[in-house]
This record gives sequence, C-alpha cells and structure tokens, in this order.
Amino acid sequence: MTDLQTAIQHIRDHNDFIVGLLKEFASIPSISTLSEHEADMRTCADWVAQRLEKSGFENIQILETARHPSVYADWLHAPGKPTVLLYGHFDVQPVDPIDEWNSDPFTPEQRGENLYARGASDMKGQVLASLMALAALHHHGGGIPVNIKVLIEGEEEIGSPNLGTLMEAHKELLACDVALNPDAGIISPTQPSVTYGLRGLAYFELWVHGAESDLHSGIYGGAVHNPAQVLADLVSGMHDADGRITLPGYYDKVRTLPDEEREAIAKLPLSEAEFMRNAANPPALFGEKGYSFLEHTGARPTLEVNGLYSGFIGEGAKTVLPAKAMAKISMRLVPYQDPELVEAQLRQYLEENAPNTVTWELKLIGHGAPAVLVDRHTKPVQSISTALETTFGVEPVFKLEGGSIPVVGLMQEILGVQSVITGFGLPDDGLHGPNEKIHLPTFFRGIETLMHFFVLMGE
Amino acid sequence: MTDLQTAIQHIRDHNDFIVGLLKEFASIPSISTLSEHEADMRTCADWVAQRLEKSGFENIQILETARHPSVYADWLHAPGKPTVLLYGHFDVQPVDPIDEWNSDPFTPEQRGENLYARGASDMKGQVLASLMALAALHHHGGGIPVNIKVLIEGEEEIGSPNLGTLMEAHKELLACDVALNPDAGIISPTQPSVTYGLRGLAYFELWVHGAESDLHSGIYGGAVHNPAQVLADLVSGMHDADGRITLPGYYDKVRTLPDEEREAIAKLPLSEAEFMRNAANPPALFGEKGYSFLEHTGARPTLEVNGLYSGFIGEGAKTVLPAKAMAKISMRLVPYQDPELVEAQLRQYLEENAPNTVTWELKLIGHGAPAVLVDRHTKPVQSISTALETTFGVEPVFKLEGGSIPVVGLMQEILGVQSVITGFGLPDDGLHGPNEKIHLPTFFRGIETLMHFFVLMGE
Repeated sequence: MTDLQTAIQHIRDHNDFIVGLLKEFASIPSISTLSEHEADMRTCADWVAQRLEKSGFENIQILETARHPSVYADWLHAPGKPTVLLYGHFDVQPVDPIDEWNSDPFTPEQRGENLYARGASDMKGQVLASLMALAALHHHGGGIPVNIKVLIEGEEEIGSPNLGTLMEAHKELLACDVALNPDAGIISPTQPSVTYGLRGLAYFELWVHGAESDLHSGIYGGAVHNPAQVLADLVSGMHDADGRITLPGYYDKVRTLPDEEREAIAKLPLSEAEFMRNAANPPALFGEKGYSFLEHTGARPTLEVNGLYSGFIGEGAKTVLPAKAMAKISMRLVPYQDPELVEAQLRQYLEENAPNTVTWELKLIGHGAPAVLVDRHTKPVQSISTALETTFGVEPVFKLEGGSIPVVGLMQEILGVQSVITGFGLPDDGLHGPNEKIHLPTFFRGIETLMHFFVLMGE
Repeated sequence: MTDLQTAIQHIRDHNDFIVGLLKEFASIPSISTLSEHEADMRTCADWVAQRLEKSGFENIQILETARHPSVYADWLHAPGKPTVLLYGHFDVQPVDPIDEWNSDPFTPEQRGENLYARGASDMKGQVLASLMALAALHHHGGGIPVNIKVLIEGEEEIGSPNLGTLMEAHKELLACDVALNPDAGIISPTQPSVTYGLRGLAYFELWVHGAESDLHSGIYGGAVHNPAQVLADLVSGMHDADGRITLPGYYDKVRTLPDEEREAIAKLPLSEAEFMRNAANPPALFGEKGYSFLEHTGARPTLEVNGLYSGFIGEGAKTVLPAKAMAKISMRLVPYQDPELVEAQLRQYLEENAPNTVTWELKLIGHGAPAVLVDRHTKPVQSISTALETTFGVEPVFKLEGGSIPVVGLMQEILGVQSVITGFGLPDDGLHGPNEKIHLPTFFRGIETLMHFFVLMGE
C-alpha cells in the first residue's frame, strides 16, 4: 500500500525546491532545430539523466540517435502490475522573435504565479512534474505502485525524425502496457480536460525560383516574373474565400465529426472572448465556413504559412527583383488524412498552378505525423480522468487538441500501445511564441494528479 | 582651344592608375541604407573630396544634410560658356545575398575585362569616369572648355531624401545651364544609346498584423487568420491574370506610348535571348498583356515585391502562426503617374480588400519620384549623341530606361534645368544584385565620350 497523502504533503512542503529545479532545467538552451545548440542538447540530456538518478530510477542510459540523444531509465519492482512508459522531450523551440520577450528565454523568471522561460510549459515543466510525482511516491509514498519506464527524447520539436528507429532498436527495452504522454494541457486552471484526439502534421518548405540572381527592379521589372509575386499567388490560391483548402482532393479523407462530438465540443467551457485572449487578441476570429472556433482548432485540418522570405527585408529600401522566394507551409491533419497523401496533393496543386516563368522546389521537413484518436473507455484514460477530478474537484471534459504529438502514432505503430495524453499546460502559455510560461499552481496540481494516476493504475 | 587628343592619349597611357583609383573608391562600403555604415559614408565623402582636389577643382565643400553628406566642387573659368552641373552619387546598395557573390563586394577584383565590386557600375565607375575626363582636359587637354559644378551625393540609393532640401539651401551655388547625370547605361559595348526617359518610383513597406504575438499553429491554427496568408492574398490580388495592376484607377493617368516610339522601341538592337541572358536567365519572360519586353521595362508601370518576411525563416521547422507579415512593394511609374497618386490608390486597394481579421500599416519609404521625359532636340542631348557616335563609331539609339533617377526631377523642379542622362553601364552589370561589375573597355570609352561631350558643349 502506498501512502499517497504523505507523498503529496512532501511535494507541498518543497515547492521552492521544485521551482528551483525547473529553473535549472529551463535555463539550458536545448533548441533542437539549430545546429549551434548541439552541445546544449548533450548538457540537457545529462541533466535529465542525473535527475532520473536522484529520483531513484535504475538502468539509466543515454540512447544515441543520428542526431540528438534520448534518455532512458526504469523502475520495475511492481510484479503483476502494469508497465507504464512515461514519454517526454527535453528539447525546445527556437526563441525568435527574441525582441518580443520580456525576459531572457533561458533565464527563467517568476512573475506572479507564472514562471517564464522557453520550454517552461512545452515540455520541461511536464517532464519535471512527472519525475517529481514518481520521486515523491518512491521516497515518501511507500513506493511506485506500477512498473515505470521513462523515455525522454531530444527531437520532438523537429518532428522526432530518429525516434522511430530508436524505438525499433530498443523494442524489448521499451515494451510496456500503456504510454503516458504529458505533452498536452487543460482548458483552464479550474477546468481540467482529457485530450482524446490530436491533429497530425506535415511541414514543407516551398521555394520559387526566377532568374539566377537578384535583378534591378527598374531595369527588369515588368518583363521578368517576380518569384515573390508568384509565391504570393500560389499561397493565396491554397485557400478559397470560405477559408477552405483548395489542394485537389484535400477533404476527401477528412473524418466527418459525429453529431455527439460536435455537441460535446459546443458545450466546452471556453468562450470566444476567452479564446481570443489566449490567442493574443487577434482583431477578429476567422475560419472555415460552417464550423465553430473549437472545431477549427480541434477537428478540422489547416494549411498555415509558418514563414515567408524573399528579397530585401532589412531597414529602408532596396529596389531588387528577387531571384527566389520561400514559404514554410505546414498542415495540421485530422483522421484519416495522411502526410504522404497531402504532400502529393500539394505537389499536384503546384504542378497545376505554378506558371512556366518560374521553377519551384518542395521539401518535406521532418517526417510528418498522422492524427490521433484515443479510445476513451480504457483503464488508463479513466484513471487520468478520475485523478484529474480528485485533484481539481471538477469533472474533466473530453476534448480534441489542435496540436500534434507524432510520438503517439509511433507508440501505437512500433510498441503496439495506446497513449494517455495529459499535461498541465494552459491555453495562454505561449507555446512556440515569445514569453512562454507555466502556471505554477497548475503545475503543482499536475504533480498531484499524476500521483493519483499512478496509484489508480496500480489498483 | 583644347588639345583633346593629348588628353585622350593621357587617359590611354594611365589605364592601370585609373583602375587602381576605381578599386580604391569601390572598396569603401558606402551602403547608405544601413546605419552601421554611417562612418564609411563619411570616409567615402572624404575620398571624393580628395579626388576632386587632385583633379584640380576649387571651392571643395562637404555639404551636410540630415543624414549623409554631399560633396560639392567647381571650376568656373570659362566665361561666356555654359555651366554644366555634374551630378553623381557615392553611395551603394546593400550586398545581400552575400553568399551569391564570387568575390568580396568590397574587395574589387578584376576578372577578364570586368572589375567586380558593389558600386563598380552604379555609380562609382561613372563618377570616376566623369572626374577622370575633366582632370585630363584640365591637366593635359588645355583646360576645361565649360564651367563645371560637381555635386556628388550620398543618398541616391535611399531615394535622395535630403537632396531637395540641400538644393533649395544652395540654389545659388548650384545654379547652372544644364545638368549632366551619368547614372545610366548603354545597350551593349558596341551599341551606344541615349536615354530620353526614366521611370519614376514609389516604394512602400506593408505590414499585416494579426495576434499580438506569434501563436502555436496547432493550438490556434484554423481559427486565427494567418497574417502571412492575408499578405499573400493582398499581394496576389494586386495583379490580374493578364499581368495588369489592379489598384483602383492605376492606369488612368498612364501615358499612351505614341506609335513612332513603339516603332523605335521595336527596332532596338536587343533580342529577347540577349535580354534573358542579361536578366540572369529566368525560365521564361513575362509581362503585361499586349506589350513587348522592351515596353514592359521602359514604357509601362510596374508593381514589384522587393521583399517578403513573416514568421520563422531559419533552418528546419517551427510550427508558428506568425503575428505579422511584411512586404516591401515598389512601383515603377511612367508619365504622367504621380507617387502620391499611386500611394492613395494602394491605400484604397488595401481598404477595400484587407479583411477585418487583421490590421495593416502602409509606410512610404523615401520620397518617391515621378517619371522623366527628356527633349531630344536640345544642344546637350545632341552633344552627348555626337560624342557617343565619335567614340563608339556607331550612331546611338534613343531609348527609355526602366530605372528611376529621382534627382532628374529635382533638378528640373528646383534648379529649373534639364538633365543629360548618360553613363556607361551595361545591361548585364548586375546593378543592385550580387556580382556587380563594370566592363573596363566600355568604362574607358566612356571617359573619352565625356571628354568629347565637354568639348562640344564649349563650342
């Protein structure tokens, strides 16, 4: 029998120590996409390994990949009980636009109830919450009531390009009954939620090339097609006036949302005003005709421009007719779309619409991921639901999440297990943008929720 | 009487010395648009002043403006002869994309008959050619046969924002009969040409703003309008399928090209194949329906995207929904369009077409310039025509130039004088792009042409 209350009290008595650990963790600039942070990635993996050791784990290993390493550890002393594979990632997104941060992204700063730092919410805070929950059970709660394996990777923010290979290579080591993936969030500090679906992702870089070098816009302008203009035409044509995506066959495989899910979504306790505040106050909402804002972000696919570049973007004027123009374009996919399918659709669109005055090049960035739908009626999902209700005192709602967690698909495909998707981020945490933060009271409630979850899983 | 042949022979005997001077001049990184080159601008103005002194000029002055200085000098010892105001600029364009240069832009390198450096052709080469022509006449040709005033400014590449004020303030000092502006070029090393028209310019920066900060494209994508998408829509809508500009009323004031000019343009000795080579080999030409490529660049107005920026443009993937997106947009104007008029038309277009899901901001960069048409039948224009024919042994053709020289309008407006537009750049000089160069044999032929011109003007 575990002594859950003692473990919870221990966490409550050591808040400052835990925040100190989070500051330490979040101060390592582990930006996986930028090659100049290679050494920081290594430092961060070592930090995680050390923290696992101090939390009482065994069999700690740095698992190498073609790029950034993963960290593995386990605690397998609950015979007859299920084995839970805790997944996390220690890498973070880049920090630009850096001048919009109110404090340095890698000098974590507490302001009010929030701790501001890149990765505070996505997902160093979630990783640390999970390890703290397990350490407290281990040292002060009478022991961990299930078998635990931990896999913390360093490539999630670049699309986990080597995770599949790593999981194949360590299939035995990683064998488990269920995965726990705390890389998501809840609706508000007072309204817990369980994520039962995630959108997939396909990310591209599109280059349009005109002349072999930049030209003088006076001498050649008017007779040479401007690649930036062509790129704008192509990007513009990817949506119609109703906000629908025009790639050929794009909606053919899209899952029709069942009426009961539409009704459940309509009842979600998130007002449009609150959503707009979380979304940093755009002048007005927008979206595909015929769907609500919660359906737009959870249940419908998108095509977004993540970046645009062409010609002269410095201060002042340069009268250049650019030689090339680039757009980073990504799509959030819903069941039963497929990254390869949408890539083919995008290629077909470009073949049909790009003029012969330019050439173009489309590169897939990362591996892409299909969408995820989780069965709500399993013991793990019911356990996290009960744990949330116990800790927050409010029944959680079930929701579809707009973000993508490609690893959930890999877990299913390679290890044959479902994932429990949880996590204690909030909608206004500023993930991937400037001033990312974590709400500390929710973070601590998250630790308690996870302790309840492990106890329920062991019953 | 001048001894023109002695002066010409002196130039021919000192080619290496003159190329050395051009290398010195072109090695100063006088990029007027970038504030970090403030000191280089000062160094370059001093270099010009020193060169004027060594060329025998008097009354040398650095004329301060609100930003970069101009250099003035004169030689007024030809009573009864006309006074020619030689205009030039010592500032240059930025060098990006720097990785496309085959040699350092500010370490001039001679390869074959060309000297490669930023500003070699636009227009340090032209300024030096003019000073060398005058110095040779002064020291070895029996004296300069006209009165000369020299004004070399430092802000041409940023649209000459302070030149009008400077000219107003020094109206007496700059009083003259005609201006000589060698900031143009000829058709080929064997086909001289006289430019009788220039397009005007209006340059803008357009910002589209959505949310107050970058957002996670998974969490918000689909319900928040992407400013990069909106920018693409707006830019795309500025042209129709026939390559015509859609701003309201845009063509209302555009000068209809007279049949005789269309016929003359059709006879210009520049093939489409040669034009495409000069234009760095775009896959195909393009342009407003109903006009030839020479009319597209000389006689018809344009709207170009000079730069695009939004979101994440680094290596790899960042799944960001950008808070803002920017396009640098410029228009080349023909008679009788007006920069203020096209700004109003662009604003009206944006007001009518921008959705309420974003806000936008339009900034005029620089002052803009109307187009220029020169009377071909004046003595100065006839003198440059004769000088070209004498030097090149081929009758020059008259042509419209696609680029803009705003100062030609200022000379007319403030000093009340016409400009002779000449210069010895070639169509493949790579102005404003990487690997800018000047063709040295044409440069030296240019010096001789200018000597002939000054002698003819003194007759």
